[in-house]
Amino acid sequence: MGDKVQGTLVIIGGAEDKTGRCEILRKVVELAGGEEARLVIMTAATEKPEAVGEDYRRIFKKLRVKEIEILNISSRTEANQNRYVQIIQNSTGIFFTGGDQLRITSLLGGTAVYQALQEAYLRGIVIAGTSAGASAMSETMIVEGDSDEAPKKNTLKMAPGMGLIAEVVVDQHFAQRGRIGRLLSAVAQNPHTLGIGIDEDTAIAVAANGLFEVYGSQTVTVVDGRQITHTNASESSPSEALALTNITLHVLPAGYRFDLNRRIPLEPSAD
Amino acid sequence: MGDKVQGTLVIIGGAEDKTGRCEILRKVVELAGGEEARLVIMTAATEKPEAVGEDYRRIFKKLRVKEIEILNISSRTEANQNRYVQIIQNSTGIFFTGGDQLRITSLLGGTAVYQALQEAYLRGIVIAGTSAGASAMSETMIVEGDSDEAPKKNTLKMAPGMGLIAEVVVDQHFAQRGRIGRLLSAVAQNPHTLGIGIDEDTAIAVAANGLFEVYGSQTVTVVDGRQITHTNASESSPSEALALTNITLHVLPAGYRFDLNRRIPLEPSAD
Repeated sequence: MGDKVQGTLVIIGGAEDKTGRCEILRKVVELAGGEEARLVIMTAATEKPEAVGEDYRRIFKKLRVKEIEILNISSRTEANQNRYVQIIQNSTGIFFTGGDQLRITSLLGGTAVYQALQEAYLRGIVIAGTSAGASAMSETMIVEGDSDEAPKKNTLKMAPGMGLIAEVVVDQHFAQRGRIGRLLSAVAQNPHTLGIGIDEDTAIAVAANGLFEVYGSQTVTVVDGRQITHTNASESSPSEALALTNITLHVLPAGYRFDLNRRIPLEPSAD
Repeated sequence: MGDKVQGTLVIIGGAEDKTGRCEILRKVVELAGGEEARLVIMTAATEKPEAVGEDYRRIFKKLRVKEIEILNISSRTEANQNRYVQIIQNSTGIFFTGGDQLRITSLLGGTAVYQALQEAYLRGIVIAGTSAGASAMSETMIVEGDSDEAPKKNTLKMAPGMGLIAEVVVDQHFAQRGRIGRLLSAVAQNPHTLGIGIDEDTAIAVAANGLFEVYGSQTVTVVDGRQITHTNASESSPSEALALTNITLHVLPAGYRFDLNRRIPLEPSAD
């Protein structure tokens, strides 16, 4: 985590509750300033930006946010337009919808909007993302990889993400799509990287001090590979099964926290 | 592991190759004495004993086993018949097919056949089981529990298994059905118990000295909970998500071994 970061990330595993208590989206609103929040909905990930954008506008309106902008950026030319940059500069919270994480990075990467997002985050706004919007937050992101499979190197495709959170790789829809294998594969390739698997209707809020707290109905699985004693990740053939020994795993439900700097889980009562 | 055990277990994660090299079934035959093996196919788990039994007879015949008996036991009365006991006493290897693990234990538990099986195993035969036949081998077995779900206590049902292997709980079709959550739940309930998740077309051969070796195309996931620093397993409400911190995980492909007594993985080259 860079020292100068002032912002907060809310990384959501997809399929967050949108009709009940809306606990996670409510948390996004709260962190972004409550009723005074100036929210921007970024639909770059989805191929149905209008429908998805309006859906979230309706929900955030129900949660009493007064200022809501939808940014349906569908080209890199648009992503360099000054009016979009100003909207981001004026916001207190950005919400990335689901879709395809490669759409986010290929549309926005290196543009003026991208630069404005990074600066706004350093300055102290909230950046939230669900599903693809969650994956895109890390420096290196998982793009593709078989679910419900034993860990194998060749099923995993990664790409450079938005780099809002360093030294971690995030996976979403985690338990629901059986993605432990592909997250283990990602961690094996560089055990310095912490794996964070976020279940549906579950989120982590990452504070500037490197502490995250879990919200929502399911769990967050943290895969710490630093103590790995052996892996065949470099020498195994592409279709061969991976070997990994001595991985440390934490499963954290709502209220639990994790210290990304010290890499230790914290119980709800502890401080 | 009891000191007096002489037998070998082959615990198979289901869907083992039956048409290609048949690596796992070939291993079963080899351990049971090769062409001189006297194999017994136990179909108690399945509701289609004739079809399943004949299927395995054909395969084992192709693998050059000369003496093959199929035991289609479908009642506890049959499971007490002396002729079945004699067949087991005369065997060098028993193969449990897939189906429902509760059928195995509810049909055989406490009968003369069950007793004969235990004695034959202590004496030194091979007992193999695939899918339900794999689950039934441990002292406590997983009967039911949601796959592709975050770990939750209430989705997990366990029952007393055949007790051929102590202090472990086995799960099968592991990666393919996304069962890490339910295995973690099982381990959280008593972290003394080692969790062993076996993928499809993958098996472990457990020797009398407590070492197992991995065979087949996928991986075996070992969940060691002894170092768990915190779990809410006892106080959480049934539908609540489980918390587990500091679990140790090993992912082992073919050729890797694991020492059940010392709980350490061994690389193929090491000894």
